[in-house]
Amino acid sequence: MNPTPLLDTINLPQDLRRLDKQQLPQLSDELRAFLLDSVCRTGGHFASNLGAVELTVALHYVYHTPEDHLVWDVGHQSYPHKILTGRRARMDSMRQYGGLAGFPKRSESEYDDFGVGHSSTSIGAALGMAVADKLAGNGRRSVAIIGDGAMTAGQAFEALNNAGDMDVDLLVILNDNEMSISPNVGALPKYLASNVVRDVKGLVKSFKQKSEKLLDMLPGALDMAQRVENKIKHMVDDGTQPSLSLFNNFGFSYSGPVDGHDVLKLTEVLQDMRSRKGPQLLHIITKKGQGYKLAENDPVGFHAVGKFDPCQGPAKAAAPAKPTYTQVFGQWLIDQAKADPKLVAITPAMREGSGLVAFEQAFPERYFDVGIAEQHAVTFAAGLACEGAKPVVAIYSTFLQRAYDQLIHDVALQNLPVLFAIDRAGIVGADGPTHAGAYDLSFLRCIPNLVVATPSDEAECRLLLSTCHALNQPAAVRYPRGSGTGAALSGSLDTVAVGKGVLRRQGETVALVAFGSMVAPALQAAEALNASVADMRFVKPLDEDLLLQLAATHDYLVTVEENSIQGGAGSAVLEALAKHGITKPVLLLGIADTVTEHGDPAKLLADLGLNAEGIRTQAEQWLAAQATV
Amino acid sequence: MNPTPLLDTINLPQDLRRLDKQQLPQLSDELRAFLLDSVCRTGGHFASNLGAVELTVALHYVYHTPEDHLVWDVGHQSYPHKILTGRRARMDSMRQYGGLAGFPKRSESEYDDFGVGHSSTSIGAALGMAVADKLAGNGRRSVAIIGDGAMTAGQAFEALNNAGDMDVDLLVILNDNEMSISPNVGALPKYLASNVVRDVKGLVKSFKQKSEKLLDMLPGALDMAQRVENKIKHMVDDGTQPSLSLFNNFGFSYSGPVDGHDVLKLTEVLQDMRSRKGPQLLHIITKKGQGYKLAENDPVGFHAVGKFDPCQGPAKAAAPAKPTYTQVFGQWLIDQAKADPKLVAITPAMREGSGLVAFEQAFPERYFDVGIAEQHAVTFAAGLACEGAKPVVAIYSTFLQRAYDQLIHDVALQNLPVLFAIDRAGIVGADGPTHAGAYDLSFLRCIPNLVVATPSDEAECRLLLSTCHALNQPAAVRYPRGSGTGAALSGSLDTVAVGKGVLRRQGETVALVAFGSMVAPALQAAEALNASVADMRFVKPLDEDLLLQLAATHDYLVTVEENSIQGGAGSAVLEALAKHGITKPVLLLGIADTVTEHGDPAKLLADLGLNAEGIRTQAEQWLAAQATV
Repeated sequence: MNPTPLLDTINLPQDLRRLDKQQLPQLSDELRAFLLDSVCRTGGHFASNLGAVELTVALHYVYHTPEDHLVWDVGHQSYPHKILTGRRARMDSMRQYGGLAGFPKRSESEYDDFGVGHSSTSIGAALGMAVADKLAGNGRRSVAIIGDGAMTAGQAFEALNNAGDMDVDLLVILNDNEMSISPNVGALPKYLASNVVRDVKGLVKSFKQKSEKLLDMLPGALDMAQRVENKIKHMVDDGTQPSLSLFNNFGFSYSGPVDGHDVLKLTEVLQDMRSRKGPQLLHIITKKGQGYKLAENDPVGFHAVGKFDPCQGPAKAAAPAKPTYTQVFGQWLIDQAKADPKLVAITPAMREGSGLVAFEQAFPERYFDVGIAEQHAVTFAAGLACEGAKPVVAIYSTFLQRAYDQLIHDVALQNLPVLFAIDRAGIVGADGPTHAGAYDLSFLRCIPNLVVATPSDEAECRLLLSTCHALNQPAAVRYPRGSGTGAALSGSLDTVAVGKGVLRRQGETVALVAFGSMVAPALQAAEALNASVADMRFVKPLDEDLLLQLAATHDYLVTVEENSIQGGAGSAVLEALAKHGITKPVLLLGIADTVTEHGDPAKLLADLGLNAEGIRTQAEQWLAAQATV
Repeated sequence: MNPTPLLDTINLPQDLRRLDKQQLPQLSDELRAFLLDSVCRTGGHFASNLGAVELTVALHYVYHTPEDHLVWDVGHQSYPHKILTGRRARMDSMRQYGGLAGFPKRSESEYDDFGVGHSSTSIGAALGMAVADKLAGNGRRSVAIIGDGAMTAGQAFEALNNAGDMDVDLLVILNDNEMSISPNVGALPKYLASNVVRDVKGLVKSFKQKSEKLLDMLPGALDMAQRVENKIKHMVDDGTQPSLSLFNNFGFSYSGPVDGHDVLKLTEVLQDMRSRKGPQLLHIITKKGQGYKLAENDPVGFHAVGKFDPCQGPAKAAAPAKPTYTQVFGQWLIDQAKADPKLVAITPAMREGSGLVAFEQAFPERYFDVGIAEQHAVTFAAGLACEGAKPVVAIYSTFLQRAYDQLIHDVALQNLPVLFAIDRAGIVGADGPTHAGAYDLSFLRCIPNLVVATPSDEAECRLLLSTCHALNQPAAVRYPRGSGTGAALSGSLDTVAVGKGVLRRQGETVALVAFGSMVAPALQAAEALNASVADMRFVKPLDEDLLLQLAATHDYLVTVEENSIQGGAGSAVLEALAKHGITKPVLLLGIADTVTEHGDPAKLLADLGLNAEGIRTQAEQWLAAQATV
């Protein structure tokens, strides 16, 4: 890699603060080069981090970290922060088992003030810190750094509304790159785009200068200057130069926009900000992928990447041997939409992640990206269903937690036919505990009127999606991250009986009562155990007939699920057995009641005993203990 | 009551639409008189409904209900709507068992387009309807009617952000009375208050005229005119008249403000609105309690009332024989705050309902009303806890559903010491299914690091609050609506061992494993059964030692809880028994997996078999069936 002589002298922010201000541009360039080299080798969130290099340098230069607080929203952009806060040497372990987390994490560093992963928490968290520090009278300062995408979520608005009315010293930095993961949708981003009004001539000049003197290896910024110029022109043309910023309306004192890649200017502005009283909003303009041409040109593709050659960009992934569940869902959605003109699809800003790119192209008028707004996504779906549409909400398990009330209050209580296609259920891997899909079966089971299905392979996924879509009531189909068994897929839209499971293997003495992704390893484990295996297909309603039949013909039952044991599918089995007066030994296998850390999913599942060997071993040990009772 | 000759001719909105426009003021006056008389006799939400009389008349006059859609936010203000849509004769049954619901409800009337109860869903739901109607090409129109309080919740903002960027015909009526249930907090209400700019001279004139010619029995409006005048004066003074409305920034076309008590003007404006294209926001000014002097002067007290004499106002409630759990919590909070300077209290706009009025007076700097913003409330608490504060979040069980992700992601995963004081857990009574606290044990049990306590009486409530506050980890204490057993209260801040229950009665053969509010009826039921009774105190961690002891010394176990059976406390008992290899008959008693309707809580609990008699009967029947197995 390139030499980074100045960066090599920086272990902690106190080292950084000893530099002369004029050295900060060089440090920023070195940091960008180090970051590029590092992410090339480990993969990870890329474009946001390149965009946050100068801001991070300036923040740690001006603010007295760790006594002052930097709260990074979402945390996709925290790699430069990690590099400057004692973790440079460990960047190679990023997002790997036992290594650095991909997001700020309180247990990892005293410089990580708040653990993040989900969007739009930073303003509220920083406000809490600012209020506590004010009560304690310790003079510490709090800064929330939030992107324009994250600003569209309701929670950010709630925090703005609260903070803007409080007598508290808080700085919110709006890092405006006109992108969330996907391009932003909604009115607020348009407002921001139309509101680049202050100091705008200087901004254009600065961008133009930069575009001529940037490192040769890291070109860029010219079209950004062009973009800003176009904005000004547009505003002058239609005469809508607003006299008040939106944020002033919320009680914040608005400053900006400032070139987020001009570290000297940023340092100067932040020095002023640190001494100001009351809620401050600083609007900075950055470019996602700044300084790396390939990333600038494809910020969506470069949002998070695997390992790659910095000169070539990420290798085009070889066509995988088997499709992911996300792809299976995406294809089913298109097929079902062709058959049912009432079908509409909704995503809270996860077009790519939820497999909706092709659907949007095929059915643009039936596709709705509502922004980072899970609450609204679900209530919007309920409204659609009231008027006869058949909405499919594509959402990650972890993000459905954000719409829990809306699922109960707006969908389930009214028994409206909304289908939840729940991706990333169970262990998610590199993203770690903030993104765990470990809880959905537990929090869904108690909801009246709701059907909950757990497909065991890709073909089952299609089958259960079609089945649940055909219902005239709320339903959820939850499937894991990545690929399944590679089951052959048909183009059919066949359905199956709701609440009925399938006996997949006939054994004796012990029956494995398996749900979703755990059916395949259960079948493998069953060979050595000579166990029966049922694919229950549905957690709710549970196939009580099949369960009673298994109980009547086996001495022992083992439930297996990729969900928290507490209140999950195994718990549903226990409830059903108790209801029917069956007293039989049952072993519950699932995700333990602890926080599962990040790492390779296969490794994490093995640690939890949720692969074929783990299921077999745990069942054997338990059966041995039963025999001695 | 007063004669209402015109109203008597109106059964459905089509009757209303046959009237001459000039008759609408008389109809409005009659409707207000009828409403006043009706609510006096039944109790219910009062002030909001008086404020919405003219708006409701104008909406049904102009819009083609039920084909057009009126989505009332929260629904506190829907009584005039119910009176005009075929339910006048049933208003006496309001909020009573088998009677009319206190909120709009789809299953009650085709004119109730969307079931509500929780705040801030109306814009998203109406947007969903508008989009579905557009896709269907049926020409129907959608209107969301939302108060300025409800507008501060993030979900409303998410919907505005989405709708403002869509090509859809939607009208949002901002019913601005400068109050939610409590006075509004936050920056947005201040913005609204400062933004009364258009047509403002006409508005003042209209108010002044009205204040002179209002019905003698229903005086009012003079101080409203005064308030508007003061606003104008203020704005002229500081020169901040905004050139763009906040809502224009969101892509809405803003109109207003309009006097929301001038039915003729409203009708005229709405006729214009109904023909407009694109997202429209109409800002109207109303007075909570309009036309009833006592309610105008005390809109908080009159938000929801019991039966009362219209000339006198609600009777001062006789000092109740025993305090409510809400009051017990409020007193504990003050006592604990005196002992612990780190304690801070947070409410999402429920100062009165959560028992925080006295705390705010005693500790104003440690009291935080964050507005209708449950998500933010919890993340804000997490931020406070990061800096050493000990936050107590006072929240209803049903509203905690809105902050579920924040509880997991911001509090539990980081193991921060935030205490959730969960009120209205279990059956809530007159508010009905939208406010049911039936799910919290199920959705809390799967969360790592969280302690969950269920006090069985008022003294236990203090004890468990003190115990959980003393922990250095997340904890929840959930208690029911209303009063408990009347247990004697001390002023102590004693604590007990976490995860340990208490054997309350020694019987034989059968043990009742009881949680929270069900301990008292279980003790009563145990007399006839000669059953043992354990007050488990904690659902998580569960007292496995006590459970094993009960299992070892009894043939049958019966769990009893005021929560959904699915995944609840009984389910935790089953998991623990399975873990320890205990195979014993267990009967799970709790809230059935259906939607519990509104009505008297005692009646509802009886229907669910969750009183002493129900527990005894169910246990006896079950035991009899066991004996025959």
